[in-house]
Amino acid sequence: MMTKADVTTMIRAKMRESKITWAAIAEAAGLSEVFVTSACLGMNSLLPDVAGKVVDFLGLPAEAAIVLSEYPTKDFPRTVPTDPCIYRWYEITGVFGEAFKELVQEKFGDGIMSAIDFDMEVNRVAHEKGDRVQVVMSGKFLPYKSW
Amino acid sequence: MMTKADVTTMIRAKMRESKITWAAIAEAAGLSEVFVTSACLGMNSLLPDVAGKVVDFLGLPAEAAIVLSEYPTKDFPRTVPTDPCIYRWYEITGVFGEAFKELVQEKFGDGIMSAIDFDMEVNRVAHEKGDRVQVVMSGKFLPYKSW
Amino acid sequence: MMTKADVTTMIRAKMRESKITWAAIAEAAGLSEVFVTSACLGMNSLLPDVAGKVVDFLGLPAEAAIVLSEYPTKDFPRTVPTDPCIYRWYEITGVFGEAFKELVQEKFGDGIMSAIDFDMEVNRVAHEKGDRVQVVMSGKFLPYKSW
Amino acid sequence: MMTKADVTTMIRAKMRESKITWAAIAEAAGLSEVFVTSACLGMNSLLPDVAGKVVDFLGLPAEAAIVLSEYPTKDFPRTVPTDPCIYRWYEITGVFGEAFKELVQEKFGDGIMSAIDFDMEVNRVAHEKGDRVQVVMSGKFLPYKSW
Amino acid sequence: MMTKADVTTMIRAKMRESKITWAAIAEAAGLSEVFVTSACLGMNSLLPDVAGKVVDFLGLPAEAAIVLSEYPTKDFPRTVPTDPCIYRWYEITGVFGEAFKELVQEKFGDGIMSAIDFDMEVNRVAHEKGDRVQVVMSGKFLPYKSW
Amino acid sequence: MMTKADVTTMIRAKMRESKITWAAIAEAAGLSEVFVTSACLGMNSLLPDVAGKVVDFLGLPAEAAIVLSEYPTKDFPRTVPTDPCIYRWYEITGVFGEAFKELVQEKFGDGIMSAIDFDMEVNRVAHEKGDRVQVVMSGKFLPYKSW
Amino acid sequence: MMTKADVTTMIRAKMRESKITWAAIAEAAGLSEVFVTSACLGMNSLLPDVAGKVVDFLGLPAEAAIVLSEYPTKDFPRTVPTDPCIYRWYEITGVFGEAFKELVQEKFGDGIMSAIDFDMEVNRVAHEKGDRVQVVMSGKFLPYKSW
Amino acid sequence: MMTKADVTTMIRAKMRESKITWAAIAEAAGLSEVFVTSACLGMNSLLPDVAGKVVDFLGLPAEAAIVLSEYPTKDFPRTVPTDPCIYRWYEITGVFGEAFKELVQEKFGDGIMSAIDFDMEVNRVAHEKGDRVQVVMSGKFLPYKSW
Amino acid sequence: MMTKADVTTMIRAKMRESKITWAAIAEAAGLSEVFVTSACLGMNSLLPDVAGKVVDFLGLPAEAAIVLSEYPTKDFPRTVPTDPCIYRWYEITGVFGEAFKELVQEKFGDGIMSAIDFDMEVNRVAHEKGDRVQVVMSGKFLPYKSW
Amino acid sequence: MMTKADVTTMIRAKMRESKITWAAIAEAAGLSEVFVTSACLGMNSLLPDVAGKVVDFLGLPAEAAIVLSEYPTKDFPRTVPTDPCIYRWYEITGVFGEAFKELVQEKFGDGIMSAIDFDMEVNRVAHEKGDRVQVVMSGKFLPYKSW
Repeated sequence: MMTKADVTTMIRAKMRESKITWAAIAEAAGLSEVFVTSACLGMNSLLPDVAGKVVDFLGLPAEAAIVLSEYPTKDFPRTVPTDPCIYRWYEITGVFGEAFKELVQEKFGDGIMSAIDFDMEVNRVAHEKGDRVQVVMSGKFLPYKSW
Repeated sequence: MMTKADVTTMIRAKMRESKITWAAIAEAAGLSEVFVTSACLGMNSLLPDVAGKVVDFLGLPAEAAIVLSEYPTKDFPRTVPTDPCIYRWYEITGVFGEAFKELVQEKFGDGIMSAIDFDMEVNRVAHEKGDRVQVVMSGKFLPYKSW
Repeated sequence: MMTKADVTTMIRAKMRESKITWAAIAEAAGLSEVFVTSACLGMNSLLPDVAGKVVDFLGLPAEAAIVLSEYPTKDFPRTVPTDPCIYRWYEITGVFGEAFKELVQEKFGDGIMSAIDFDMEVNRVAHEKGDRVQVVMSGKFLPYKSW
Repeated sequence: MMTKADVTTMIRAKMRESKITWAAIAEAAGLSEVFVTSACLGMNSLLPDVAGKVVDFLGLPAEAAIVLSEYPTKDFPRTVPTDPCIYRWYEITGVFGEAFKELVQEKFGDGIMSAIDFDMEVNRVAHEKGDRVQVVMSGKFLPYKSW
Repeated sequence: MMTKADVTTMIRAKMRESKITWAAIAEAAGLSEVFVTSACLGMNSLLPDVAGKVVDFLGLPAEAAIVLSEYPTKDFPRTVPTDPCIYRWYEITGVFGEAFKELVQEKFGDGIMSAIDFDMEVNRVAHEKGDRVQVVMSGKFLPYKSW
Repeated sequence: MMTKADVTTMIRAKMRESKITWAAIAEAAGLSEVFVTSACLGMNSLLPDVAGKVVDFLGLPAEAAIVLSEYPTKDFPRTVPTDPCIYRWYEITGVFGEAFKELVQEKFGDGIMSAIDFDMEVNRVAHEKGDRVQVVMSGKFLPYKSW
Repeated sequence: MMTKADVTTMIRAKMRESKITWAAIAEAAGLSEVFVTSACLGMNSLLPDVAGKVVDFLGLPAEAAIVLSEYPTKDFPRTVPTDPCIYRWYEITGVFGEAFKELVQEKFGDGIMSAIDFDMEVNRVAHEKGDRVQVVMSGKFLPYKSW
Repeated sequence: MMTKADVTTMIRAKMRESKITWAAIAEAAGLSEVFVTSACLGMNSLLPDVAGKVVDFLGLPAEAAIVLSEYPTKDFPRTVPTDPCIYRWYEITGVFGEAFKELVQEKFGDGIMSAIDFDMEVNRVAHEKGDRVQVVMSGKFLPYKSW
Repeated sequence: MMTKADVTTMIRAKMRESKITWAAIAEAAGLSEVFVTSACLGMNSLLPDVAGKVVDFLGLPAEAAIVLSEYPTKDFPRTVPTDPCIYRWYEITGVFGEAFKELVQEKFGDGIMSAIDFDMEVNRVAHEKGDRVQVVMSGKFLPYKSW
Repeated sequence: MMTKADVTTMIRAKMRESKITWAAIAEAAGLSEVFVTSACLGMNSLLPDVAGKVVDFLGLPAEAAIVLSEYPTKDFPRTVPTDPCIYRWYEITGVFGEAFKELVQEKFGDGIMSAIDFDMEVNRVAHEKGDRVQVVMSGKFLPYKSW
């Protein structure tokens, strides 16, 4: 039974072989780079027609589109990531997490930023002292409710 | 010996007592809300003159300014945060961390987003289906080097 | 500086001394038992007027009402709870969690039950073979979104 | 030797192939959706005749019915689940667990809600601000005994 | 506010001072040694009249009886105990746990031995090659139920 | 090279196929149910002649008898077991472990119950309110020694 | 209530103040250095008369002798020790533990070296390339038993 | 590519088949039992000529000698071992580790026993109350140095 | 799809077979030993032409050069390494980490040594009392920035 | 009883008050900055005369010199450090640890770099693209020995 991990391996093989980028796959899908990449890595589902476009673009078997549209189990390492590129973000969570919470509460009241009704982009911003990685995240504010 | 935790408690007591906001403290400091809040929570250091402005604004003892300008040890929970507002960000790291790494590498080459040469803001963005928390982070790209 | 833990201790002392129940405190607050109990244990915030009613009912100092209305940091044990009454619920999460996820997805699509826009009650249901604890939880369905 | 994991894979393959739902399997079994789903996922056993009905309905080999009726080892992740749909329930356990314990004890005395003599349902409840996931759990109260 | 830990310390101080045994306290309580000892260590509650007998026998303040009759939070080390006397039991759980499960299931069907409707005794049994510690535990069988 | 895990799988396959019980295997071995079951699960060794009887009874290959008589490495989960039937015993260790230690010490002096010179049985005891699982364990008392 | 930790602190204070060695305390006790040191650190109990000799030698209050003769709870770090002197021994356990087990089993049969009926000494052995720490441990062999 | 684990399996298969002991392998190697056993288990390297003798004695393929002489990665369980024979040694580390450190420091000064310039033997010592396992370890004292 | 782990295995097989050293591979690559070794072990990427030289030198298939130039996920054990050669470095981090931080801050201000803009060498330094391993690491100082 | 932690606090208080640097304390001690700093932080011992110089220089009480010369227990966080300045070094251990081991073994044979017969310095090296932190560590090579 073809799994999401199988499909990710097929996609990576195509990318290596044909020098395809995530940007190109996202363009074929008609959605953002972050979302499409995460779906191809098995962390989100694509609507069936979007999955079909990705599978067509990459020349994968038809079952791959069904797999890409199935709802994933988001299983990620439970503690501290080790790859520096991902760890730095974890570190930012540790260093600025409490400040983030204080400011969300000050600006909105008691509640949280949704991680479900959420979007994010990653940009390259030119800078004279060295280009910068810019991340813009946005999530609906969800207030706690009394009952 | 007065510690950073002591100063954070003094600041919170003043805020409760006089209904002062983080926004007001940041304005007194002349720096961004995220940075000043994190420094008041003991996670960053303020330059001595900035620390002096904060201490004057809040009416704290002079030693507090020295403490705010000392270099902190950034000690944060080593595993999974539990407060939902902070956890959601940790979850985003888990769900989108690998996609983030793929896109940084595709746009810049092998390397990372710096968590040191870094800035961040938290905004309230009006939205008809419910206002959104927007976070904009930017860090210098640091390429891996061969030698 | 009075903390939420201090207020919880004050409330428990009053309850021991005057044989007050959570049901009575909830009635004084005009909200549900689960929510009010969790707020008195430091896991949720009360609106200022509700906090005032609780403090008046129990005869606590006025600062306690401010503390009850401040936004909490929800800090709970990060791994496996040991008290059997709480552990059983954790066990239910383990045994039925995957089935729960399958059924939510089948009935609603890809998404989750909100733990923020959420309510819950605990009831005693008479039963001839021994009364039963009934828990009714309800949370808004939050669909994952493409972007 | 055919294992419960093998049978779960067979069931999922049939569901993907023939677009069968958990609701349909539960109806074939004549039991509730939550229980039947959890048994198909390997977390509970079915009585032999019920297992037979499921296997007939799905067109699986006869040995699968024996496997479904064998008593499982309920092995689940020992710490914090990561999939958001399951994590939120874990979070509810953390945030409301102590309140739940207080109320069970207040309503029944010292004891627990059984996780064995237990049932549960998951419903979709229409709501104008967005439909809600409703979970109703019920477990026999088990009092601690002196001896 | 007097806690269960405070009462345990008072009891141990009396035992050291007056050379009182757990057997004597259990006799005063009119219950078994295992149960009374566990309650004095804060892991179970005593009925008010039993708590009163213990407090009278040991000459403790009256509030101690209220504390002994309150329902405890059973908080124990989450991983591997280190004291050899307790560790050996943990080791028995590891070595014989699976065999225990197989035999319970073979003799009773799918289900468990209750840890709530439960009793236990610890005896000294004379033996020519060295006396033996005998533990007899008994718990109600709780069958899993379909629904 | 045939391993203990291989032999356990062979035994389970025979039991499923021919509806053989642990009780029958123990009778063939001429030893207790708990010990024989634990040896068949790879947690203890059988003397060569006993191993031979088990292998003959089940119709396994001759090498299986050698494997059953080899000394095992007792490798069990290092933290908290999750299957409820085994977890309850772990919970009993947590709740009553300290009381057990107090009583062993009071009855015998400073020392422990051996987990090596040890035996155990699991019985079904009829009871009008529901049959009970009875466990009787006995281990040699081992006193600590000064030197 | 005086604890074992209190007594250890008293002993260390006397040792610092009067430049007393563990060797001298052991000589006063009339027992080995390893055992007496471990008892003074709270990890073993001394017989009352031995405890009395230690307390007299060091000039401690009489209650200290009672405390030294009480049975300890051997509570030690559950994972990896960090002090290099202790860590090296842990490392030896890791590197040579399996070889040790093989050889014990080859020389004695299935069983273990007792950690209770156990003694140990630490010696300084002169050596031309640098003196060596010699540790001699001896524990009764405990065979596993069938039943 | 043949690994150390492959060679260990080959050695164990030969031992089972031809009833060869570790003592015999050590004699063939001309080194101690502990060292040779640990090398055959993949935790140490043998000099090429010694490895050749072992491989000849056991009749293994020539590549096995190369593998036995390669430098191992000593990878062992990071926390608490569970097999009782190895666990007891870990327990001794926990109970006597601090006393060991005190005595090493008292006899030698600040420093440690080397785990690299180290040797160890395991002996069977006859004793009227039951034979004893004797372990003699010796490691060079390594003093800490100022600089 | 050929992975970095596959390539590492190929490289190790060639090194065993043809007695090639890391020094020789580094010379073929025209880069330092530390960097090239880490890249061959899958922890860094080589520029395509450098990867080509390594692959040519070792006689590996052409796809191996593509794999060596892909950007790795740096996945390493999350807690305490056990091999003594690596553990000692971890121990140095523990013992001297805080001192290192103090001195970096004293010499440079608040900030860190980069682990990305970083180089390192390992040398053998002759010494009359035994040759020494010398490690020289150098990383760009990255100052924390206010904003 | 004055502890090493007490002395560290006294030293930090003097440094804050009188703006004394670690460099100045090291100069007063006549030893290197890294070693003296680590000893003042409680991770190493100073010889009595060196300790006396430090205490005189800082104007601390005489007992502080005794404490500084006592042998420490090197207790450091067992898992992943969080302060970025220390974490980066831990990360280097993870990323380059295996390469380090390969090169030590290639240059010296099977063995390790001592962490006891060890020295280290931290330097500021000017560089046109930003000054660099240079760390030079040197430890005696300790070969594994057969026996």
